[in-house]
Amino acid sequence: MAGNTFGDFYRITTFGESHGVAVGGVIDGCPPGIAIDLAAVQHELNRRRPGQSAIVSQRREPDEVQFLSGIFEGRTTGAPIGFIVENKNQKPGDYEHLKDVYRPSHADYVYDKKYGLRDYRGGGRSSARETVSRVVAGAIARQAVPDIKINAFVSSVGDILLDKPYQELDFSLTDSNSVRCPDAATAARMEEYIKGIRKEGDTVGGTITCVLQNVPAGLGEPVFDKLHAELGKAMLSINAVKGFEYGSGFCGATMKGSEHNDVFNADGTTKTNLSGGIQGGISNGMDIYFRVAFKPVATIMREQDTINRAGGEVRLQGRGRHDPCVVPRAVPIVEAMAAIVLLDFYLKQQAYI
Amino acid sequence: MAGNTFGDFYRITTFGESHGVAVGGVIDGCPPGIAIDLAAVQHELNRRRPGQSAIVSQRREPDEVQFLSGIFEGRTTGAPIGFIVENKNQKPGDYEHLKDVYRPSHADYVYDKKYGLRDYRGGGRSSARETVSRVVAGAIARQAVPDIKINAFVSSVGDILLDKPYQELDFSLTDSNSVRCPDAATAARMEEYIKGIRKEGDTVGGTITCVLQNVPAGLGEPVFDKLHAELGKAMLSINAVKGFEYGSGFCGATMKGSEHNDVFNADGTTKTNLSGGIQGGISNGMDIYFRVAFKPVATIMREQDTINRAGGEVRLQGRGRHDPCVVPRAVPIVEAMAAIVLLDFYLKQQAYI
Amino acid sequence: MAGNTFGDFYRITTFGESHGVAVGGVIDGCPPGIAIDLAAVQHELNRRRPGQSAIVSQRREPDEVQFLSGIFEGRTTGAPIGFIVENKNQKPGDYEHLKDVYRPSHADYVYDKKYGLRDYRGGGRSSARETVSRVVAGAIARQAVPDIKINAFVSSVGDILLDKPYQELDFSLTDSNSVRCPDAATAARMEEYIKGIRKEGDTVGGTITCVLQNVPAGLGEPVFDKLHAELGKAMLSINAVKGFEYGSGFCGATMKGSEHNDVFNADGTTKTNLSGGIQGGISNGMDIYFRVAFKPVATIMREQDTINRAGGEVRLQGRGRHDPCVVPRAVPIVEAMAAIVLLDFYLKQQAYI
Amino acid sequence: MAGNTFGDFYRITTFGESHGVAVGGVIDGCPPGIAIDLAAVQHELNRRRPGQSAIVSQRREPDEVQFLSGIFEGRTTGAPIGFIVENKNQKPGDYEHLKDVYRPSHADYVYDKKYGLRDYRGGGRSSARETVSRVVAGAIARQAVPDIKINAFVSSVGDILLDKPYQELDFSLTDSNSVRCPDAATAARMEEYIKGIRKEGDTVGGTITCVLQNVPAGLGEPVFDKLHAELGKAMLSINAVKGFEYGSGFCGATMKGSEHNDVFNADGTTKTNLSGGIQGGISNGMDIYFRVAFKPVATIMREQDTINRAGGEVRLQGRGRHDPCVVPRAVPIVEAMAAIVLLDFYLKQQAYI
Repeated sequence: MAGNTFGDFYRITTFGESHGVAVGGVIDGCPPGIAIDLAAVQHELNRRRPGQSAIVSQRREPDEVQFLSGIFEGRTTGAPIGFIVENKNQKPGDYEHLKDVYRPSHADYVYDKKYGLRDYRGGGRSSARETVSRVVAGAIARQAVPDIKINAFVSSVGDILLDKPYQELDFSLTDSNSVRCPDAATAARMEEYIKGIRKEGDTVGGTITCVLQNVPAGLGEPVFDKLHAELGKAMLSINAVKGFEYGSGFCGATMKGSEHNDVFNADGTTKTNLSGGIQGGISNGMDIYFRVAFKPVATIMREQDTINRAGGEVRLQGRGRHDPCVVPRAVPIVEAMAAIVLLDFYLKQQAYI
Repeated sequence: MAGNTFGDFYRITTFGESHGVAVGGVIDGCPPGIAIDLAAVQHELNRRRPGQSAIVSQRREPDEVQFLSGIFEGRTTGAPIGFIVENKNQKPGDYEHLKDVYRPSHADYVYDKKYGLRDYRGGGRSSARETVSRVVAGAIARQAVPDIKINAFVSSVGDILLDKPYQELDFSLTDSNSVRCPDAATAARMEEYIKGIRKEGDTVGGTITCVLQNVPAGLGEPVFDKLHAELGKAMLSINAVKGFEYGSGFCGATMKGSEHNDVFNADGTTKTNLSGGIQGGISNGMDIYFRVAFKPVATIMREQDTINRAGGEVRLQGRGRHDPCVVPRAVPIVEAMAAIVLLDFYLKQQAYI
Repeated sequence: MAGNTFGDFYRITTFGESHGVAVGGVIDGCPPGIAIDLAAVQHELNRRRPGQSAIVSQRREPDEVQFLSGIFEGRTTGAPIGFIVENKNQKPGDYEHLKDVYRPSHADYVYDKKYGLRDYRGGGRSSARETVSRVVAGAIARQAVPDIKINAFVSSVGDILLDKPYQELDFSLTDSNSVRCPDAATAARMEEYIKGIRKEGDTVGGTITCVLQNVPAGLGEPVFDKLHAELGKAMLSINAVKGFEYGSGFCGATMKGSEHNDVFNADGTTKTNLSGGIQGGISNGMDIYFRVAFKPVATIMREQDTINRAGGEVRLQGRGRHDPCVVPRAVPIVEAMAAIVLLDFYLKQQAYI
Repeated sequence: MAGNTFGDFYRITTFGESHGVAVGGVIDGCPPGIAIDLAAVQHELNRRRPGQSAIVSQRREPDEVQFLSGIFEGRTTGAPIGFIVENKNQKPGDYEHLKDVYRPSHADYVYDKKYGLRDYRGGGRSSARETVSRVVAGAIARQAVPDIKINAFVSSVGDILLDKPYQELDFSLTDSNSVRCPDAATAARMEEYIKGIRKEGDTVGGTITCVLQNVPAGLGEPVFDKLHAELGKAMLSINAVKGFEYGSGFCGATMKGSEHNDVFNADGTTKTNLSGGIQGGISNGMDIYFRVAFKPVATIMREQDTINRAGGEVRLQGRGRHDPCVVPRAVPIVEAMAAIVLLDFYLKQQAYI
């Protein structure tokens, strides 16, 4: 109800503010008996972690997850998995000057309107630091649905597009560069561009493409909880996301039926895949792919006009440690949310077999 | 869980197949004491109804809603509102030839994979006829949040774009033409194009833009149930939808922070509105606007290659009564889902005041 | 949220008022491919129906269920099952005199306080007529969990107790008398007593015992959704219920651990069963048994003092058609709710196997 | 779904095992702006804590709660409140001998059947240590609904009953003795009895009565989520509970309608209160009272026959630190769950005003 829980069957509830004691969460509904590879969980957190390269926020957080319950002798027990990640490098003092100021295109103003008060330290609950908990839950989910391959990558930064079909990409190269684009030449251009943007004290948006492979046919519920509707909600719930499309997406809206229909092969696969692996909200066994649009980070290192709580006009200079472009660090978050959605639908489908 | 319910507080559960006895639903959580304008509900159904113009499906359905409960002496009582709309013009015989055939880019194949059997008559549960129930629930919701203005319109058909900002449009003209585009000249081009497509036995996609005005600040829940995430899920759950974007959308992913940030006026409004009326998942009082992409209808009046249940290859000739382009009739559906989302968040917000 | 839905996976949403057009509901989450015996559903409705004997309400309702969706060619399809039961013998005029009067120990007063208005015709939504929909959903649930045996029976009326352990009863005799007590001698005394009560214009309470057999070990979720906690909620949600106990129940509160513990046999069964087939909220494979207390029906055929909406004191004479004792007709309702709870937990458990 | 969450609007999710790192939880949906009295929260934990008197478990736990989020400058922010309570005195070694043994009337056997494995240390997740988290959530809830008075007390231990109506009791005396019975003479007898039981190495059951006062009329949802149905589920979800009754309860099942009906006063109050403050599932403004039955603790300090995982018969001697009677420490747990239920319904009701 209050929006801090996601999933029906495999369900994650998160808590924590950017500069509070810790962020964390509870995973409920994880199947019992799963051997958990803790290093793999930490690996995903490291991919999301600030300070990992020159083009991301320089906040220094070890982001070490502590599991408090639900795992016994290396295996999940069916009990809820509580976990925390301490905020080691919290610097609430950095935000004292924002106590009464509303930063443009941040959530400061609406939190005050909604709640009547707010934790102003680094965006409080509205900070993307909350996604730490999603990454943990996603990493556990991936281990519970091991056959499904989940690969996200940066497909554009500003106007620089990765102009190749995903089938031509080698996903093992995604993490080989700091921007997380699996095409080396494009990645180099993107990195160069982000460095320039940072120097200008500016930020830039981008897109992430995600490909889900080996998804069995039959996942997703018709009508309201269509597989792509839940994927869409999951992605739109990530900080800074402005759009979601799957399969042919917005481009499909310009096409004719005779072009768009995916003709079957005798084995039930299709010759084309404009459907994006989902028909009527249910997976058909083909690759699922979707694209997520992220706006530029709102905190820029320039002076901006804004207002304070009393409605007075003030000048604001960006401070703190921020990303010039959010998409490189958002790649593991997109993958995590996809894993959570898939496991949730997988468990639902199991119930009827 | 099984996906036929939407909303937490204002909650709609729908049932019914395209060629069964009736479609209908239950609205739970409608505030008590609301005077219901039944003609306004029927008006919305008429806007969605097939057979209303030359460019939509010629199925003849009166689509008259019968309320069975929850309304007493013209007012809602707080009890659940059960309703049905009979399928008068059902022609299950039209679909006998599809019993064992999987139509390309329809849900036939995945329903068989998921459930092991399916109601093949006109797509059964996967038919957009289900949206009748959404329109009823949305029409009731609109009457319970009367100050909010909800206006959707067709913003593109194939490659024909309505190339004006929504602020320059007169929404009262949306229904003045059969395509539901409030710009007369563009509408005429779209109609002409759809007629041509129909003659070719083909179909075409399009987009709908929706604008929500007078939304109070503070609606939406942070983290997973962001206002735009729920709107996105609601829209993506409509048949044939492939994408959703709000505010700057996919275009925002190409922008810089210095261009994208919405600077405040002293009263908390913003000089620009690339945020699309939502910050951090919560409404800020500015106009909310979003765009929804619809693929071309999969049933075309041409012969196509496909397969049957046994994996045999067959030729299929489209039959039945279908829309050449779905967006004109989808306008009231988009508005209905937006109304349901808004009322749900409005009630949640009330709980804390 | 608004309380008209029960169950997570197998989920029933009901609607309808006592003297409205119809009562009905939507069953969502029923497994696909179940062959539905419609006569068995109607049989359960007939057991609940008024007018079936001299000791129940004389309202004449055929209570014929019409299924509107979700069943195709005799089998469930996985789609939601919508159904209605028309109110044929509605006599709203019988209730005109109650428009502004609050009947003692009825819900009239609290509905006005909660909603600001109410449908006063026969209790409106607060009438036990709502349980028609539960019986339909329960009858479907029983067909989806066929191996589990569910047997409820009247175990007391007023001070007359059925003083035998359930193991000595022949459940096939439960319906052989109008009071639904499987012991003929006790049943005869109960019937006589109820007839006397009716002549006095009075009513009387009673209890129902329910036994669930062949329940596999492992159903129920620990902590909040314990099997007995859900059974308890389900029973307490039935009109007129004042108490619930399972296994040793209230008597167990007077016992010592050395007396109460159920010692295991080598096969995991237990020598005694004071646990009532549930340990830690999870079924252990032994018989589950519980007891439900019903208060006397509030409508009596005598003059009573009461108040009206304006706070004025008035005399009220009971009218309409009412039961002198609710337990005989409540037996199928108790069984229906038990079936719904069991199927719901059964499906959840399937998800992890 | 997996049963570790309670409440719709004010929602508590708990985690943690008896001898793991910590127990804890997440409170979601707490209204913003509530000034939290942390000492009052700790006070409730102290009331539940083991080792507080001679008649309870001698496990030594400080049970200090650490809040990790959701409270800023002493007030709730509307963000989820994460908290943990470390298990300081965990002695997993005490339970090594139980690794493969199923204790009678414990959850060991069913956890193995349900999950295929279990955390055998002190009952793991099935331990009443989980209720630490409920007490925290309840203590916060009480501060958010401050006008409602919630008073539970021990009303029986074994055969020793507190034989006075609650109106004659002084609730301020409840905590004046270690058994938590507000009548000094009865309390003394109960204490004496429990001490004797402990000496015998045995345990005994008991009941708790709870009274809710100043509850506004209108709380509770009709049909499935009746106020007493949720209270019943809440209580039945507490470890060792076997029964729940409210108002006239099981006794009401023996009464006549002419005796049982509560006649109104002109102001809407009633002359009697056999309804227990709830009619049709909705509070009527009168006192709500209910009674909860607890079985004797299953762990006794005597040798018992039991079986191990392989089905072999073994002798088992109770060890560890256990309560001879659970009701004294369960008083704050009953109050906590009542507070959670009331706040949840209070918030729901707010949504419509």
